[in-house]
Amino acid sequence: MIKSSVLKQLSSIVENKNFYTSQEDKITYSYDGTPLLEHLPDAIIRPTNKEQISHIVKLANKEHFSIVPRGAGTGLSGGSIPVENCIVLDMSQWNKILEIDTENLTAWVEPGVITSQLHQEVEKIGLFYPPDPGSMNICTIGGNVAENSGGLRGLKYGVTKNYVMGLEVVLPNGEIIICGGKNVKDVAGYNLKDFFIGSEGTLGIFTRILLKLIPKPQTSKTMLAYFNTQSDAGKTVSAIIAQKIIPATVEFLDKTTIRCVEDFAKLGLPTDIESLLLLEVDGHPVVVEEEAAKVVECCKRNNAIEIKIAGTEEEAMRLKTARRSAFSALARTKPTTILEDITVPRSSVAVMLEKIQVISKKYDIQIGTFGHAGDGNLHPTCLTDERNYEEIGRAEKAYEEIFVEAIKLGGTITGEHGTGLAKKKFLHLVSGYTAIETMRTIKRALDPNNILNPGKVFDL
Amino acid sequence: MIKSSVLKQLSSIVENKNFYTSQEDKITYSYDGTPLLEHLPDAIIRPTNKEQISHIVKLANKEHFSIVPRGAGTGLSGGSIPVENCIVLDMSQWNKILEIDTENLTAWVEPGVITSQLHQEVEKIGLFYPPDPGSMNICTIGGNVAENSGGLRGLKYGVTKNYVMGLEVVLPNGEIIICGGKNVKDVAGYNLKDFFIGSEGTLGIFTRILLKLIPKPQTSKTMLAYFNTQSDAGKTVSAIIAQKIIPATVEFLDKTTIRCVEDFAKLGLPTDIESLLLLEVDGHPVVVEEEAAKVVECCKRNNAIEIKIAGTEEEAMRLKTARRSAFSALARTKPTTILEDITVPRSSVAVMLEKIQVISKKYDIQIGTFGHAGDGNLHPTCLTDERNYEEIGRAEKAYEEIFVEAIKLGGTITGEHGTGLAKKKFLHLVSGYTAIETMRTIKRALDPNNILNPGKVFDL
Repeated sequence: MIKSSVLKQLSSIVENKNFYTSQEDKITYSYDGTPLLEHLPDAIIRPTNKEQISHIVKLANKEHFSIVPRGAGTGLSGGSIPVENCIVLDMSQWNKILEIDTENLTAWVEPGVITSQLHQEVEKIGLFYPPDPGSMNICTIGGNVAENSGGLRGLKYGVTKNYVMGLEVVLPNGEIIICGGKNVKDVAGYNLKDFFIGSEGTLGIFTRILLKLIPKPQTSKTMLAYFNTQSDAGKTVSAIIAQKIIPATVEFLDKTTIRCVEDFAKLGLPTDIESLLLLEVDGHPVVVEEEAAKVVECCKRNNAIEIKIAGTEEEAMRLKTARRSAFSALARTKPTTILEDITVPRSSVAVMLEKIQVISKKYDIQIGTFGHAGDGNLHPTCLTDERNYEEIGRAEKAYEEIFVEAIKLGGTITGEHGTGLAKKKFLHLVSGYTAIETMRTIKRALDPNNILNPGKVFDL
Repeated sequence: MIKSSVLKQLSSIVENKNFYTSQEDKITYSYDGTPLLEHLPDAIIRPTNKEQISHIVKLANKEHFSIVPRGAGTGLSGGSIPVENCIVLDMSQWNKILEIDTENLTAWVEPGVITSQLHQEVEKIGLFYPPDPGSMNICTIGGNVAENSGGLRGLKYGVTKNYVMGLEVVLPNGEIIICGGKNVKDVAGYNLKDFFIGSEGTLGIFTRILLKLIPKPQTSKTMLAYFNTQSDAGKTVSAIIAQKIIPATVEFLDKTTIRCVEDFAKLGLPTDIESLLLLEVDGHPVVVEEEAAKVVECCKRNNAIEIKIAGTEEEAMRLKTARRSAFSALARTKPTTILEDITVPRSSVAVMLEKIQVISKKYDIQIGTFGHAGDGNLHPTCLTDERNYEEIGRAEKAYEEIFVEAIKLGGTITGEHGTGLAKKKFLHLVSGYTAIETMRTIKRALDPNNILNPGKVFDL
């Protein structure tokens, strides 16, 4: 517990209305999007300028309390779950787009800007910010940067780190630096910027973010293909890439997910198929036509039962809803949804899908799998009930086995959700102990009092 | 000086033929591509496996000598110049392409692979490795990764770091880790990989590198446009980007460079023009035709005197030679060529070009400027003689002023050559002292004995 004298000092840094210690408020901030994890913070603080943040960080070093930064709290690895003796630093009010520079194709934003709001603003002027995490309508850019979030357009356009050109960061010692800038190329000094990206709030607090924008693709074509087997869907993905086509989107849904989506969203999806692919190609109209035709051919050659091609923007949105609503659709079927995030090299997607099926049978748990098949990034999602300890135990064992199998295939335990609390005990499987020790060495050097989001990613 | 007993231990780690201490050998390894800098190493060692490197690194920690890793030694910021009490670790023999994975579009290579050799190998099978530094015919991938090299295709395709998916690294303590892999997305733990990229041999020695490949563009169109003023060339670049066209290449040559190139390569370039742009668009044939037409229109609208469009691959090569030979052409005119590497936000290229002209007049030095105009990355190149101390003094003052002006425009002191020895005293101008202290803190933590390439990037 943080001493009341320290809480008093904290409250004096910000206006009264920006400091919360009531039980209701603590409960509100005690969890994020991750199941099975929660912890009450000692207080919540909403700083309104970077000097306040610096002040808070310096006080944390002096008084030895911890700071857990938080955007919208949509994270799926427990990155913003409070820890012992901590305050939550709520950045959600930092929601201004500060500048859109149409000459250099960049945008300076505050970390609390909602991702889809940025999409809308830049698309109005013919520009494009590709990263589109599943939670894009509620998550914040700051959280996206902290977790290096992905999304549906990752295959062609990359993930958040590919669009961060600069960061203003409050360091663990309270000092403030800017790394990066509007230069397309910059190799002066170490690449601190990319090291902060994905560091999950453990190395610094972002106060301003400079993003790269690109010209908006002229047009796009969205398709949905149904398959009788998972393996046919997997082969289709490989066949498309082998044709040297890189679609913007190649998303996979398995049978369980399809049924839940149809039940939830009533899109008219057939519920007797084994899997479907959502495919989107974008760019110049001629290229889109040509690539779409080739994609359709790949689907047919790999036994697609039916292929739907969106004729209008509205139809495209409806097809995309099948994928966009996957998590919500699964989540409403059972009290607890454990969403995992393994990634394997693209060539191993079909094998991995099969392994997930085998493992879910072995442990007798219900898993619906969907994900970014083109990226090899799959979300096997366990539908369970956290009050059923026995089943949760089996689910945990199943996930451990899924992680091990993914890593055997050259994969990783998390493609876009982060390590956080939820996956830190598995980090050694993918990184090895020596690399973790290297990470620890850097964390200790930059944050010797371990005040910034301690216990996330790894224990010190 | 390294003690002879230590040299003996070193020589016992590798075969005799891979350890050199003769004066001739020391002289050969005493310099790299950077003018005005040289230093004799105490020995040169050519390890043949990673265990030997680990052994050497551990001995360096025990006996307190330094290790300067080196590829082809083409660097332009002094990154591979020997320091006091050091051995050079020559990695140029590690020149095997270990695997090209056509399913996952990746290549595992040894660090000593020559960049253009990799280009040729992957293009044979319809794939593409975009980074193409000026020295691509002699430089190594390891050096490219250590410096995060750019090239002519950076505008559309990005730089080396955008293509490094994994690294095997011998750490400063001699331990070996692998970071990254074939996963398109991976956020497990801190992003060590991107932190090693561009760390200029100060944080680790690369022993294997996993690169991302992309499908080879179907076709391309190369153009050369001549202008009566620098400002017209600058405006053309902005006009092209404003049309939402991202060419693969937008290269600029000023009058001095054009004259030297023509004198050297006899390409039939007019020597009375003020500047030229080399432009290349690539991709789908229809898009290429359309974009090329728009590019030509932008050139005309901004007063291009003449526009040459390559009709064949050979003609394209000839046009590209105008740019590719710029450095060599300038270098042969005077005994010493000091090549700088500032970058400014794209929108400020025209202003920066003007400032360089004003500064070169003020200090009465001859500067030829060429560079990646689309990236804002310019190479103002001073033609001088290192024996003329007085002129070198003026050149140094001129460059300092150029750096300051670049930074005022939001630019940086190095876009693709690195900080090394040559630019470390200016690093604070772009990064600020607090960020440098953050870099130092990490370096000290990972390399407490400062054995890996000490004195490069910054002093400890």
